[in-house]
Amino acid sequence: MSRHFEQAPGLAESADPATEGYVFNQTMLRIVDPERSLDFYTRVLGMRLVRKLDFPEMQFTLYFLAYLDEQQAQAVPEDDNRRTTFTFGREAMLELTHNWGTEEKAGFEYHNGNDEPQGFGHIGIAVPDVYRAAERFESLGVPFQKRPDDGKMKGLAFIRDPDGYWIEILQPDMIERQQKAD
Amino acid sequence: MSRHFEQAPGLAESADPATEGYVFNQTMLRIVDPERSLDFYTRVLGMRLVRKLDFPEMQFTLYFLAYLDEQQAQAVPEDDNRRTTFTFGREAMLELTHNWGTEEKAGFEYHNGNDEPQGFGHIGIAVPDVYRAAERFESLGVPFQKRPDDGKMKGLAFIRDPDGYWIEILQPDMIERQQKAD
Repeated sequence: MSRHFEQAPGLAESADPATEGYVFNQTMLRIVDPERSLDFYTRVLGMRLVRKLDFPEMQFTLYFLAYLDEQQAQAVPEDDNRRTTFTFGREAMLELTHNWGTEEKAGFEYHNGNDEPQGFGHIGIAVPDVYRAAERFESLGVPFQKRPDDGKMKGLAFIRDPDGYWIEILQPDMIERQQKAD
Repeated sequence: MSRHFEQAPGLAESADPATEGYVFNQTMLRIVDPERSLDFYTRVLGMRLVRKLDFPEMQFTLYFLAYLDEQQAQAVPEDDNRRTTFTFGREAMLELTHNWGTEEKAGFEYHNGNDEPQGFGHIGIAVPDVYRAAERFESLGVPFQKRPDDGKMKGLAFIRDPDGYWIEILQPDMIERQQKAD
């Protein structure tokens, strides 16, 4: 039996034992203004700041955010070094990089990867109810790239974070529900 | 007691109950050639292909990859629709988007976000032993952006995926070990 769940050219059928224990730990985005971004990711999206690492010599700070339920939060080490190890060992950390001073440069902005030249597309947040989430974002004044019923792909939305990065808002069972409804 | 583990301007101290159940599900990167990228992410990095979604009308395919241990793999639904729901509900999915035909366009390439204009920086994979991992990548001919002992930040590496996206290779306890060694 395959270790994959689909067929496609290029798939390596056997896992190299050397890759055992590998974890998809982080996604890094540069941000212009940490106060603005931390407000967005913690207030609007409900994430927690797990670790902040300052690099004064190189003039930047890294902010690591995650979703943690109460039980997971209890397990986060208070000791800074141990919490760093926790931060780098866990799945699904959002790393925001702030190069000091960018927030004071008029007109300074980062590239979101969807305008040309394209590359990175988006991060995605799964929510229990995409329409309810979208209504709340609307009421909070969050800019939309796509509302849930815009375009061909119904039932999923894209919002924009303070730097213009796209965030897909999706409901895990959206396709299963559509199939049942058809 | 704070729900965060650091202090910083902008942090929302209370979590809006509306964000309960939110999951940082995915990170999407556009790729030129799926065969080349699937080989890289499954053979070199050991990920599994969990779901593939074709959109013939819009001429693109989405590939969703993840790290799953044997126990987690057992829990992946075989039914396509249920596996889609699984894919969209889980943390730490890597979504690769292939716009059909890009692999046949000479010189077509995507922007990695680190060359100008900057934005997205990298994804990061935690490994049990960064030096051992780097030796293996070297032996497999994987291009490095930074070897573990290059530059100021010792003990972490950056490799480049087939489209030139940077992948940080890090060992979770790297800072804790350095502190102990000092």
